[in-house]
Amino acid sequence: MLYFIGLGLGDAKDITVKGLEIVKQCSRVYLEAYTSILTVGKDALEEYYGRELILADRDMVEQEADEILRGADISDVAFLVVGDPFGATTHSDLVLRAVNAGIQYRVIHNASIMNAVGCCGLQLYNFGETVSIVFWTDTWRPESFYDKIKKNRDLGMHTLCLLDIKVKEQSMENLMRGRKVYEPPRYMTVSQASGQLLEIVNNRRNRGDDLAISEETICVGLARVGAEDQAIRAGTLSQLATCDLGGPLHSLIVTGNLHPLEVDMLRLSAVTADALQGLRAADSSTYTS
Amino acid sequence: MLYFIGLGLGDAKDITVKGLEIVKQCSRVYLEAYTSILTVGKDALEEYYGRELILADRDMVEQEADEILRGADISDVAFLVVGDPFGATTHSDLVLRAVNAGIQYRVIHNASIMNAVGCCGLQLYNFGETVSIVFWTDTWRPESFYDKIKKNRDLGMHTLCLLDIKVKEQSMENLMRGRKVYEPPRYMTVSQASGQLLEIVNNRRNRGDDLAISEETICVGLARVGAEDQAIRAGTLSQLATCDLGGPLHSLIVTGNLHPLEVDMLRLSAVTADALQGLRAADSSTYTS
Repeated sequence: MLYFIGLGLGDAKDITVKGLEIVKQCSRVYLEAYTSILTVGKDALEEYYGRELILADRDMVEQEADEILRGADISDVAFLVVGDPFGATTHSDLVLRAVNAGIQYRVIHNASIMNAVGCCGLQLYNFGETVSIVFWTDTWRPESFYDKIKKNRDLGMHTLCLLDIKVKEQSMENLMRGRKVYEPPRYMTVSQASGQLLEIVNNRRNRGDDLAISEETICVGLARVGAEDQAIRAGTLSQLATCDLGGPLHSLIVTGNLHPLEVDMLRLSAVTADALQGLRAADSSTYTS
Repeated sequence: MLYFIGLGLGDAKDITVKGLEIVKQCSRVYLEAYTSILTVGKDALEEYYGRELILADRDMVEQEADEILRGADISDVAFLVVGDPFGATTHSDLVLRAVNAGIQYRVIHNASIMNAVGCCGLQLYNFGETVSIVFWTDTWRPESFYDKIKKNRDLGMHTLCLLDIKVKEQSMENLMRGRKVYEPPRYMTVSQASGQLLEIVNNRRNRGDDLAISEETICVGLARVGAEDQAIRAGTLSQLATCDLGGPLHSLIVTGNLHPLEVDMLRLSAVTADALQGLRAADSSTYTS
């Protein structure tokens, strides 16, 4: 059996009891290490699980899938994924390879950023399409995520923006010389993502476009969701562009229409006392006891 | 501290290790019991956790919130929620009451249907707004969810449809006589939801509307996601209307544009061998080893 086991979002203890039992009993345990990170490292997981973990980077999952599947028809192999195995990134390719090879698989679910963002108080069923915001370079500055956010906002929906992760990237020079030397990992911050969005807003304004977003649009920055030191800040897009939420991972939400109860929840994490002024809150008498 | 702890979707062991440790140490433990169910009952949870659970139905959470919060400023109280505490249903009201009363709170996340549906192979970031399908009565047959599905499909997005749950409902007679006698719980099936959708398709066709959905639209029925006996069936809306997926809870997905890799995954759970014929699959050579 090939087990896909979600690790949740915080630390070693965010695995489910069922997941932990399976990890302890599998013959080999892989840790998918290229689409997300926990706030603790591989060593902490190995110590807590009492198991050696084999790091599975993108190359390995894509090029050495047979090695991961080896023997999974007669013994148990675990493939650990931060968040949920079918969260922001799916592992359909590995599932299909397993099924094609006659190997059964099972999924042990866990929280992922796709549902845990609900903790900021915005209702999950009011989210539209999720978008990814990638690091711009000097020559590659895609704006397509802005258009998706616009479509969501036109329907009144919130947009969860997943922020870029660069792990095991090679510099152009090292790539051309075939040197397996990697750059330090980079994780996009809420501030960087907001800055890129503000640039697009400016570009569109200069083109005379109908603006879907402005400097004043209410957004929510989230960092290390599910960890002890998680941070949530609600404010205008301009405010978030100068907001430091600390270490990775970060996510950004661009809000759509806000329900009064959502406004009340966002006030709990407002950047400044007046950041959300002018928004209609729920009848405050509801919550006084 | 007031802890909101997600229980995940399957059985007692789907709680996280962190969540279980907190449950064992809290002075009182409530179980929210009106928006979802596990495949195991309260007794099984109590036995596994080694703790007595206080059932918190909707009346209690809405009218006796102070009792739930009592003492949470000086001791620890846990509020258990099937799935994630901020999944399909949020508990913002209880959070706000706690904060207003000077009580700190913390969320222990888990899988919810909102992210676990990814196990069927459809990519979570291609989902639009989530909708609820309610039980029709003789006199109340709302069609608004159809229009939301249409909006999603117009953008090429999938739609997760959460299906109605009727727990602790009173008959009109018992309600009028003030008798606290409750009807047996009812959980909408994929077949029932598909049937209601087909009726709306017919109504709209008779009105001459531009159809967003037809009998041939590819849908996915899911039952008991995350449990050992979970069932997933992909097929046309007509096929799902006659498909028996067994006990609760059920969910239905109306697909939008399908990526070839999504098609490959749906084939694994096709109602019939030819249910998904005509859809373009990914290059099958990708998965042969």
